[in-house]
Amino acid sequence: MNKKGLALFLRARVRPPPPLPPNQGRYPDSLPSQSRPLPNSNMDPSLSNQHRANNISPSVMLKDVKDWMHASMSILAHKIEPVDTNLENFLQGYLGLAQEDRRELILVLARDYDVNRTRVRDLMQQYLSLEPPHALNDGQSSGPEEEGILSAFYRTERNLRDAIKPMYALFFERLNAYPGGLKLLVVLRADLLAILAKENIPSLRALDSFLKEKLITWLSPASLGLHHITWDDSASLLEKIVAYEAVHPIKNLLDLKRRLGVGRRCFGYMHPAIYGEPLIFIEVALLKDVAVSIQDVLWDEPPTPECEASCALFYSITSTQPGLAGINLGKFLIKRVIELIRREMPHITTFATLSPIPGFMQWLLSKLASQLKLGKIETEDASTLSHIGSGSVFQENILLPEEEKMIVNSSVGYAVGNSGLEIMKNLLASTNNEWTKSDCLLKALKSPLVRLCARYLLKERKRGKALDPVANFHLQNGAMIERINWMADQSEKGLRQSAGLMVNYVYRSDHIEEYAELFINEGHIHASPELQQYVNDN
Amino acid sequence: MNKKGLALFLRARVRPPPPLPPNQGRYPDSLPSQSRPLPNSNMDPSLSNQHRANNISPSVMLKDVKDWMHASMSILAHKIEPVDTNLENFLQGYLGLAQEDRRELILVLARDYDVNRTRVRDLMQQYLSLEPPHALNDGQSSGPEEEGILSAFYRTERNLRDAIKPMYALFFERLNAYPGGLKLLVVLRADLLAILAKENIPSLRALDSFLKEKLITWLSPASLGLHHITWDDSASLLEKIVAYEAVHPIKNLLDLKRRLGVGRRCFGYMHPAIYGEPLIFIEVALLKDVAVSIQDVLWDEPPTPECEASCALFYSITSTQPGLAGINLGKFLIKRVIELIRREMPHITTFATLSPIPGFMQWLLSKLASQLKLGKIETEDASTLSHIGSGSVFQENILLPEEEKMIVNSSVGYAVGNSGLEIMKNLLASTNNEWTKSDCLLKALKSPLVRLCARYLLKERKRGKALDPVANFHLQNGAMIERINWMADQSEKGLRQSAGLMVNYVYRSDHIEEYAELFINEGHIHASPELQQYVNDN
Repeated sequence: MNKKGLALFLRARVRPPPPLPPNQGRYPDSLPSQSRPLPNSNMDPSLSNQHRANNISPSVMLKDVKDWMHASMSILAHKIEPVDTNLENFLQGYLGLAQEDRRELILVLARDYDVNRTRVRDLMQQYLSLEPPHALNDGQSSGPEEEGILSAFYRTERNLRDAIKPMYALFFERLNAYPGGLKLLVVLRADLLAILAKENIPSLRALDSFLKEKLITWLSPASLGLHHITWDDSASLLEKIVAYEAVHPIKNLLDLKRRLGVGRRCFGYMHPAIYGEPLIFIEVALLKDVAVSIQDVLWDEPPTPECEASCALFYSITSTQPGLAGINLGKFLIKRVIELIRREMPHITTFATLSPIPGFMQWLLSKLASQLKLGKIETEDASTLSHIGSGSVFQENILLPEEEKMIVNSSVGYAVGNSGLEIMKNLLASTNNEWTKSDCLLKALKSPLVRLCARYLLKERKRGKALDPVANFHLQNGAMIERINWMADQSEKGLRQSAGLMVNYVYRSDHIEEYAELFINEGHIHASPELQQYVNDN
Repeated sequence: MNKKGLALFLRARVRPPPPLPPNQGRYPDSLPSQSRPLPNSNMDPSLSNQHRANNISPSVMLKDVKDWMHASMSILAHKIEPVDTNLENFLQGYLGLAQEDRRELILVLARDYDVNRTRVRDLMQQYLSLEPPHALNDGQSSGPEEEGILSAFYRTERNLRDAIKPMYALFFERLNAYPGGLKLLVVLRADLLAILAKENIPSLRALDSFLKEKLITWLSPASLGLHHITWDDSASLLEKIVAYEAVHPIKNLLDLKRRLGVGRRCFGYMHPAIYGEPLIFIEVALLKDVAVSIQDVLWDEPPTPECEASCALFYSITSTQPGLAGINLGKFLIKRVIELIRREMPHITTFATLSPIPGFMQWLLSKLASQLKLGKIETEDASTLSHIGSGSVFQENILLPEEEKMIVNSSVGYAVGNSGLEIMKNLLASTNNEWTKSDCLLKALKSPLVRLCARYLLKERKRGKALDPVANFHLQNGAMIERINWMADQSEKGLRQSAGLMVNYVYRSDHIEEYAELFINEGHIHASPELQQYVNDN
């Protein structure tokens, strides 16, 4: 291929991934996670499984897979090692099942291999009838007889500990030890979460909470390898980066190459048992200053020479496995990447993010709507107010008087509305984003949007957490909120999610632990004085 | 250095490792495991800990380490994340403690952070007073009310599951997630086992059984990387191979280089959280036939060209971490190595071992002694026989008549004794191994030793397992016993352990699963017809 041909090839748009199957939804996660299944992403191409893909029959019967599961379970119940063939068949079989059959199998798993409650009750009666030996408190026994009593007591406790585990616990442990088994369990949890998103079945919730706990212990950050992903990596790995990257989609090979080239870094957490794809990856830009817009980061040409950079900007973090939803690996990844960059490039002193604010517009529009409704009711019938006041909704001055005035003045010809509030709501709710094309409207909306966004990020909570999931993620990792950036993401998605606003979180290496602790334990959010001022004034 | 200088350098004897500290014994293991601690082997040189070694104060106070542990524990008890500094201090501190202080700390850990029994009892009373919801059996609930009851029931069960864990469970989990923490827990278990070898303290046994279970799940074989160790590996890694290899000690660099060179393979299982040393490694020789003596394997010069080899001979397998005693990683390692070699070298069709028989002489000498005693008593006073017969000792014909005759005839001038049995015992018990220097004695002893060794390997059991630990290891992994080799290990250790005998176990790839299952579940041992004959005749 000549030079021109190669340039065209690199610029060719990356084929968009296939649409989601109907039952694969988005899962709630601390990160904008990615649930698009890759073609064959369920296959584990690890050494011992190279033939696996070929062996999957196109029409695996649910009955067979159930039988393989039952066979393994009943062997495990007798404390005997299950035969690998059974596990292998189950593993292959499960991956070959249609979603409806997987649902059925998971229900059987949760129901038939739950806790053996008869045994638990018996052991509990036995335990409660025992007097805890005195020697327990001393930790040391005085003679062989007392030693025997103590040992028997510990044994009873141990039996109880085993008995109160669901029977599927042993099966999961065994699968985890088997090649490809961990990946299968991650797939199974993704299926489980997809079911739970539609139906609230308590036995499945219990199964999920158990499996999640197991996955946390198996995927301990100390067992994950940090991999620096470069243009020298295999096409199969890079293909996955393209497919998974959901924060700022990768447009073509040139875009990908730039994200892996000079002035850029991409790091992934790899687990030895999940072959050929990172569980989570982070993209970093090395810049002179903390970037104010994502356009500057993605199309910074030529890139800043690395020796001149003083800021490492995390502009995208993507968890690739829907089955690991709610398991915060990003926290460890960020800390490890900061440490690595600090050591390798001591001239880099600022570690910041340029992050989306995915919940801002949704919160703002609902806030505006409820205030409008409240205002309307107040006008129509003041007597009903007391009734509505019993909810959490009460009237506020969302807009400052000068903001109200500017919006009304600048909106002539654009949107209908009786008040600044109503005009603002209509402008922001319109899908064509017309307001972004008028300098006048942009000027009028900038101040209230930035101010309200500061309030959203610094003040709005849900069950003690920050309401915005990305804010909550970085705050619990120990970051502070530094700056809100106007028109920082002008993509259609950026405008829809957050009126084009983005935020810089900053990780101060000396304070990460302290800030994380204060936020998690006391709910305290650190913010720059500029942002703090917005909420103090209010 | 000139060529001659290099040759001398390579042949220089490797400095013997330091002697064992008094409280670091050998731990019972299925393998001839290695407990010699390496200098600084406790330090984890992983990325984030490069500075750790420098930070350890030479005089860490037990009180400080206790305080760091208490601080982490009390934070965890409130479901709050402990500060990394506390964990880091504890980790450094523990490694800096003297053995006596470690013992004290472990006792505190087991006693003060055991199960919270008051809470367990309360929760049990609560649980037993609940009627298990009917919907449990259907797995699905019919309405929101029933859903609520079910959820509450599962929650109680979950709380109980958490409460019946010792309080140190959370601390271990958190340590496992922290860099260097897994290695620390392995060191801690080694210390714990060393204490238990001397004192039977029930609370420490309970701690050990809990920690062992945790280590099994964290070190799942699927999370271990198979590393082909070669002469291109780092000196620090190779130094560890030299230090750990205990089956056939590595004499000098030339010996090491040969074991990693043409016709040889060395594979280790690496865990990402235990940096720079394999948890277990296996040494393989590629040969034309199954070797009959270890001398042929270690000093086979020049090595068989690899394309002419048809047998992969496992001649040494060493687990490096005393803290992983009783955790069978070797089983997975052998299977994985067989699979790898089969794929890469299809002309290799036989997978065998050349293994020591560490318990043979001990068993044989005690057998001979008890028979001699029995014979003596019988002669002196036949009436006491019935008394002794109540034990497991009864008189047998250990030697065949012709063996008895040959021994008596050939022993003139070597050993005193009234019978073949007594002469044999005296010859084998003497530390100078004089019998190996007489062709006549060698000829006389060969037949009974090989025959009795077959009986030892095929028939002698202890709690359902094969009495010989190495035999038990390979049999439970799915091997069969193929051949006993005369004068196969003429080293001082080989003569002392097993009168120079070694055994070939063979792994038949199509039967590994089946043989393992039959042995584990039914105690059935597969052996070649030749060996089988020895025990059938008897």
